[in-house]
Amino acid sequence: MTTEIPMQTCRHVVLFKFKENLSEETVQEIETAFRNLCMGLPFVIDFEWGRNSSPENLNNGLTHCFLVTFANEQDRDVYLPHPAHVEFCKTYLDGNLEGVCVVDYMSRH
Amino acid sequence: MTTEIPMQTCRHVVLFKFKENLSEETVQEIETAFRNLCMGLPFVIDFEWGRNSSPENLNNGLTHCFLVTFANEQDRDVYLPHPAHVEFCKTYLDGNLEGVCVVDYMSRH
Repeated sequence: MTTEIPMQTCRHVVLFKFKENLSEETVQEIETAFRNLCMGLPFVIDFEWGRNSSPENLNNGLTHCFLVTFANEQDRDVYLPHPAHVEFCKTYLDGNLEGVCVVDYMSRH
Repeated sequence: MTTEIPMQTCRHVVLFKFKENLSEETVQEIETAFRNLCMGLPFVIDFEWGRNSSPENLNNGLTHCFLVTFANEQDRDVYLPHPAHVEFCKTYLDGNLEGVCVVDYMSRH
């Protein structure tokens, strides 16, 4: 089974470190909510995520990566202030993050 | 045109901030060398990269993302100490980076 992604897309790389007092249950709830957010937005053309497994110890404490893919930067610009995104951030992220890093790029091969 | 990537892969997300005294020419040389490295390794099943274009200012100064895809963590473990990778790091990265962040994950959808 494969996913088909256009050769050039706008990638939105979101890295989190959650506060250490968060329960595993809450972390899973946030993971699911992020997925549900992205699956519900037609201009998100691909979504994947995972927990850090790098042995290099260069992750600056960040433990989660969410990779949100848009066709172009215009769709990313629709996503950022979108009410569903704003609501997700307010409900699930505010007060729960100890670290964050976001890098977007138009993919080149 | 599309790329076909298996549903679950090992993603190796590499973020850089280059030292500010580096010329644009040198930065381009490093981008090309990273690409050439990955294109030359049969266990790298996909490679893409780009320069940060996020308007959120949450990139912690990091300006480049390289997304290296392996079939699994075993192949990532072959890559890390691989002589071609070690040589690339020594030749192009040592002394040139002001910031780095690496997060790997097995992709979930």
